[in-house]
Amino acid sequence: MISAPQLSHRASIMPASPIRKLVPLGDAAKARGTHVYHLNIGQPDIETPPEFLDAVRTYREKVIAYGNSQGIRVFVESLQQYYDSLDIPLNYDDIVITTGGSEAILFSMMAVAEPGDELLVFEPFYTNYNGFAIMAGVRLVPIATQAEDGFHLPSMEEIEEYITPRTRGVIICNPNNPTGTVLREDELQVVRDLALKHNLYVLSDEVYREFVYEGKTRSVLEIEGLEEHGVVMDSLSKRYSLCGGRMGAVISRNRRFMDVMLRFGQARLCAATLEQVGAAALVAEGAKYFDPMIAEYRMRRDATFEELQKIPGMLCRKPNGAFYIMAQFPVDDIEDFSAWMLSDFSENDETTMLAPGPGFYATRGRGNNEARLAYVLNAPECRRAVELVAHGIEQYNSMKRKG
Amino acid sequence: MISAPQLSHRASIMPASPIRKLVPLGDAAKARGTHVYHLNIGQPDIETPPEFLDAVRTYREKVIAYGNSQGIRVFVESLQQYYDSLDIPLNYDDIVITTGGSEAILFSMMAVAEPGDELLVFEPFYTNYNGFAIMAGVRLVPIATQAEDGFHLPSMEEIEEYITPRTRGVIICNPNNPTGTVLREDELQVVRDLALKHNLYVLSDEVYREFVYEGKTRSVLEIEGLEEHGVVMDSLSKRYSLCGGRMGAVISRNRRFMDVMLRFGQARLCAATLEQVGAAALVAEGAKYFDPMIAEYRMRRDATFEELQKIPGMLCRKPNGAFYIMAQFPVDDIEDFSAWMLSDFSENDETTMLAPGPGFYATRGRGNNEARLAYVLNAPECRRAVELVAHGIEQYNSMKRKG
Repeated sequence: MISAPQLSHRASIMPASPIRKLVPLGDAAKARGTHVYHLNIGQPDIETPPEFLDAVRTYREKVIAYGNSQGIRVFVESLQQYYDSLDIPLNYDDIVITTGGSEAILFSMMAVAEPGDELLVFEPFYTNYNGFAIMAGVRLVPIATQAEDGFHLPSMEEIEEYITPRTRGVIICNPNNPTGTVLREDELQVVRDLALKHNLYVLSDEVYREFVYEGKTRSVLEIEGLEEHGVVMDSLSKRYSLCGGRMGAVISRNRRFMDVMLRFGQARLCAATLEQVGAAALVAEGAKYFDPMIAEYRMRRDATFEELQKIPGMLCRKPNGAFYIMAQFPVDDIEDFSAWMLSDFSENDETTMLAPGPGFYATRGRGNNEARLAYVLNAPECRRAVELVAHGIEQYNSMKRKG
Repeated sequence: MISAPQLSHRASIMPASPIRKLVPLGDAAKARGTHVYHLNIGQPDIETPPEFLDAVRTYREKVIAYGNSQGIRVFVESLQQYYDSLDIPLNYDDIVITTGGSEAILFSMMAVAEPGDELLVFEPFYTNYNGFAIMAGVRLVPIATQAEDGFHLPSMEEIEEYITPRTRGVIICNPNNPTGTVLREDELQVVRDLALKHNLYVLSDEVYREFVYEGKTRSVLEIEGLEEHGVVMDSLSKRYSLCGGRMGAVISRNRRFMDVMLRFGQARLCAATLEQVGAAALVAEGAKYFDPMIAEYRMRRDATFEELQKIPGMLCRKPNGAFYIMAQFPVDDIEDFSAWMLSDFSENDETTMLAPGPGFYATRGRGNNEARLAYVLNAPECRRAVELVAHGIEQYNSMKRKG
């Protein structure tokens, strides 16, 4: 009997989701009757606008047929309308619908970089960039940002040190997952200057665009001079609490780039028809949906941050956007602590699940005492979840001291 | 002003869908009031079982949340049940849900082959294998099959001539798109012997499994000895006329391979939740849906084939499966003829759209006088569509002769 044939190198280095790998321990805790506060995953509890399911329910075609590879017309037009409401005028062909922001990221990476080419990315970063880069054979070049200064970008000169003849682009995530950092205008200008000087694509992940609590930021599509270099990787998952809908888009004014997106899109035929029908109904929501949602998240952020501040040795800045806080914990090994919180700790049959920091870094050894907290529960629950973390740290560290 | 940065090599060689590239000519014909019979694309007119939309309509969750990366439990279990009804017992973890058969193909290629590695494929083949191979950086090595003998596989020895140290697997499509050929038991044994002798993966595209009109074939999952080598790339698109649902799966008993599928799946989080809820309701359909559907397609095939037989110089064998006929036309340049049918020909304001052969070949110059006909219209329409082709050929060739 012959053994199984070998798998590809990329298959062997493909990481399991670091966010999901604590799941078995969480499940075991629940099986013991412990309530687990999920601060580990960016799954909002906010209701999806009922217009989505209403539109799906009234779908009357007898055949669920292939849609256009670019996306069905009403949905593409609804996104045009949405961007128009942001004062970002787009042509119809500037948009290709994708299966979630995920496909937008994969297609964009594949279009600008060849196997062996490099893309700059600021650490910590959305963990799945790693997976898509491995699929595409692209090398991510991580550039450190620091908790101490709120994870803002380094200077142009510092970034330039990482540029090689194989650098094809720079990935930004604004507002940022996992740090919650919102890019300032001066940082966007650094990105612009860098892109123009070195002729790099700017792949801009803007899925948290609405989630800005103070000040404002701009889309890469609004930055003069980046018409040919700017690419937005968009998603409705967070904006409309539609994570399971897998509705995203890739957007650029670069005609040749968009032509590639369409050809990649044609290979996989189309995005799901029904979900597009539902999603097309959402653009009418606008401010009446976003305003209370953002107010709610601001409250959650404030509650979470306030509780974190009470923990001795906990280091974090109050972030301005997204719904995450990346905090430096007063523990040596966050993976061990996060696992311990699920397997050994509980208080009144409650505990908290975190997303350990190392999953958000490509540089080995970084993030060992950091964790990402997603404030996707209501404010009192966020408070309680962080309080449990506080008590956990106390107990964990005292146990460690006793050794 | 700096020009746009360069795109990747794979972006530049990514083909536009050859099936879709006649679309503008078709649209222009329709704008002139001409009815176009679409024999060009595998979009069935058969109704999607109403159970799909019924299940979707009764969905009562307030948040359309991320599902499990493997797929939601009811849907995975429904596929287990479906395979059980085919006497193919599977473990729960032998299945990962994908966004259409498309994602199953892309993930499978990436898992078994590295950029630069080779996969054998029999020509003509499903045109989008090309696109996915380019995305994955994998080289497809085409092995010719012939219209004259019904596009059956060459001998083991002939296939072995194409094997190099970089060969990682062989792709089969059974029943075949575009040829309609159903693999015989002796051919499956060749595939088995080849895989075991050279330790190759067998990536088996079985999305047309139900569409067999005479005789029978087997899944790669039923072939003894291929437990570690066999991978099925599956889809509900054709089986339940659910093309726009983008519901597929990758299935294997190879544990390490399935672990890779799950990790690829985790990078893109999950397949669409609602579509899975709908799709889970379909397994109960079984024979009561398939039997009349297959009877209907058999009638369409017979009608289409009978009309093709009447055309002088037209060469094709009656295929046993899928819903395609790949025919050799008595014209020199099928691309030109297919375009001409849309732009210059009509009879009683009707014409027919074909899928030109070259799109189904990787070898330049092959397929120039072939076209694929998808008999996805009712029998009288199929007859009329082929009759239009007959009259078109007559007129086109007489025009060419006059020069």
